[in-house]
Amino acid sequence: MTVVTGGITAVPGILAAGMAAGIKKGDTLDLALIVSEKEAVVAGVFTTNKVVAAPVVWDRQRLRRGKGRAILANSGNANACTGRQGYLDTVKMAALAAKALDVSPEAVLIGSTGVIGKPLPMDKIEAALPILAARLHRNGGEEAAQAIMTTDTTLKMVAASDMIGGRPVTVGGIAKGSGMIHPNMATMLAFLATDAQVPRQVLQRCLRQATERSFNRIPVDGDTSTNDMVLCLANGLAANRPIKPGSADARRFQALLEHVCLDLAKKIAWDGEGATKLVELSVTGARTEQDALRVANTIATSSLVKTAWFGEDANWGRIMAAIGRAGVRIVEDQIAIRVGHVPIVRRGIGLGQSVEEQANAVMKAREFTVTVDLGLGNAVAIVWTTDLSTEYIKINASYRS
Amino acid sequence: MTVVTGGITAVPGILAAGMAAGIKKGDTLDLALIVSEKEAVVAGVFTTNKVVAAPVVWDRQRLRRGKGRAILANSGNANACTGRQGYLDTVKMAALAAKALDVSPEAVLIGSTGVIGKPLPMDKIEAALPILAARLHRNGGEEAAQAIMTTDTTLKMVAASDMIGGRPVTVGGIAKGSGMIHPNMATMLAFLATDAQVPRQVLQRCLRQATERSFNRIPVDGDTSTNDMVLCLANGLAANRPIKPGSADARRFQALLEHVCLDLAKKIAWDGEGATKLVELSVTGARTEQDALRVANTIATSSLVKTAWFGEDANWGRIMAAIGRAGVRIVEDQIAIRVGHVPIVRRGIGLGQSVEEQANAVMKAREFTVTVDLGLGNAVAIVWTTDLSTEYIKINASYRS
Repeated sequence: MTVVTGGITAVPGILAAGMAAGIKKGDTLDLALIVSEKEAVVAGVFTTNKVVAAPVVWDRQRLRRGKGRAILANSGNANACTGRQGYLDTVKMAALAAKALDVSPEAVLIGSTGVIGKPLPMDKIEAALPILAARLHRNGGEEAAQAIMTTDTTLKMVAASDMIGGRPVTVGGIAKGSGMIHPNMATMLAFLATDAQVPRQVLQRCLRQATERSFNRIPVDGDTSTNDMVLCLANGLAANRPIKPGSADARRFQALLEHVCLDLAKKIAWDGEGATKLVELSVTGARTEQDALRVANTIATSSLVKTAWFGEDANWGRIMAAIGRAGVRIVEDQIAIRVGHVPIVRRGIGLGQSVEEQANAVMKAREFTVTVDLGLGNAVAIVWTTDLSTEYIKINASYRS
Repeated sequence: MTVVTGGITAVPGILAAGMAAGIKKGDTLDLALIVSEKEAVVAGVFTTNKVVAAPVVWDRQRLRRGKGRAILANSGNANACTGRQGYLDTVKMAALAAKALDVSPEAVLIGSTGVIGKPLPMDKIEAALPILAARLHRNGGEEAAQAIMTTDTTLKMVAASDMIGGRPVTVGGIAKGSGMIHPNMATMLAFLATDAQVPRQVLQRCLRQATERSFNRIPVDGDTSTNDMVLCLANGLAANRPIKPGSADARRFQALLEHVCLDLAKKIAWDGEGATKLVELSVTGARTEQDALRVANTIATSSLVKTAWFGEDANWGRIMAAIGRAGVRIVEDQIAIRVGHVPIVRRGIGLGQSVEEQANAVMKAREFTVTVDLGLGNAVAIVWTTDLSTEYIKINASYRS
């Protein structure tokens, strides 16, 4: 596997562009268009929130057909909690993009992110689309990545290639989202593309699993948004042997897709609002992967654990208490905890002041690992998360665009 | 129902005392003893955390017998994650109190709260107990309430009386805990007493329900501790008609017990670390009470909702997103939201800038209500919670005693 430059437009046959359409104030890019020159197979994974934004409703319908040509996404407005008018606006966005690209509206997927409950400025989007379509180019990945940013402080894009089915295959993607999740900023969008030749069902299954092991492994404050989506276009231009389910090719493709998703997911976690610490949290020795994940998520979303990380305090009592309320069977005196390579709890009991001081020293770094071993089995889960800082509160108390 | 003074010692036949045994630094009270002059029926409700402190293990065993004479509780040390030695120390505490009071060790319940993972200073407790027992008196409720405080900034005690079964019956109690929950400070203890004559099973059922509607209705950050407990002694001195399950007497007793528990629970919620806003959150129009409670708890533990409250921002998009991920069936366009008496969302859609400004004005008060109507049924749940302030992070990042 090789990491390549160019983000989503590193993928053959994928063009992109971004522009300032005036949805946000000033000259900030706020409208992105991604197009596959050849009709692509489409897969998608969406928010589990039961309050869903209009674009999620539209895209779910498109996925039934399973083919597509373009993704049009705006930032600055989530088009969520906007009722029937919001849905009509999404339909209109697809129609406008379809007209500019000379494709069917059913071939256009839509993403929106920004404030909740405000109508989209459709006149601005309508005026922008012909210009945006004319700007499409082979190096537009970065522009598109910029145009979907909201509170993001870093650009999120990546691409990688591998030999699959006898041919070089590329997967590229862009994402937006920052670790501390804004429901009213519509949190997390990831748009991926690949030139792999892959049946729709295989692509959907691979994307779901890749999402599960990447974007779903960055628990931060337990909030999920109304607009979260991960979309992937596969245009088949690599002309590889078609990827069969369960084959070695499928495993290689899965690994490639997961690499790209995990890279984007970590960039999101690392971009946490006010985050000062980046923590890779492993739960090992669980009876099942589900148990491991529940324990990991409970620890990673505990305000008390996260504030202790902020305070560079190896406060293992808070971790023990989080483990105990994760809703899985545990045996207290089997639990071991390490911060970096420093063991601080063994057999459920703290190892004393001197190791805690060593652990506190490890926590002075910007990135460190925490490992919890439940001592009951062989299942493992890894999640990536951040601390909870005073800055987080300040940002979220004052934020409203 | 009449509120009376004296806290737990307002109950006939209940004596209490508190003293500084030296478990905490300085002259701070840290050891409390509550005694019933007559053998009492005992009920208890304990933490659901699977990591449990030694006193919880001991008390659960005592509850099988269902009779007791005394509660001995210390602050400054939770005796949690202390292994076999911790359990032996709890047994020793019961034996020491039993000796000082000339009762059986099995008649002594134990509570501990404070730091996790440190051995109890048993020599200090041993030296203190004869002195503490000698100090027992009819007005000792306040002393006892002080001696169980940790990060509490306010004393928590209450008592109330009502005519039940032809006689005046009193329920009194003390509690410790502050809204933002410290697993390593063992969070929440509530000790109640009553002179009601009540069968053990009835007392247990009433206490469980009262706990469910009070201490379990103050969700703050989703953390639960290893030491949480609610204990109630009923010594029968009121000589009322014995309270039969399902009777009018049982309902009156339930109401009295709930009044006391809810008063203590609100005092805990209001004492939240760094809290600047006190929010009574009602979820109405739910299909079931369980649905209502899940929605209420999801909103009340959302860091984003709580930081918006801190920012005095009627950011209803965050509330909508929390409702959507609560895991219950909802219909987005049936949802209505009010802040105080100001409607801000109707049929799932925001009512605009001008009402939001009115709502922001309501939120300038220290206490306000938020009402979410799901529009699907008649079930209701009310919870009491606080905002999430920068002060909370500061307290929890730096705290370790």
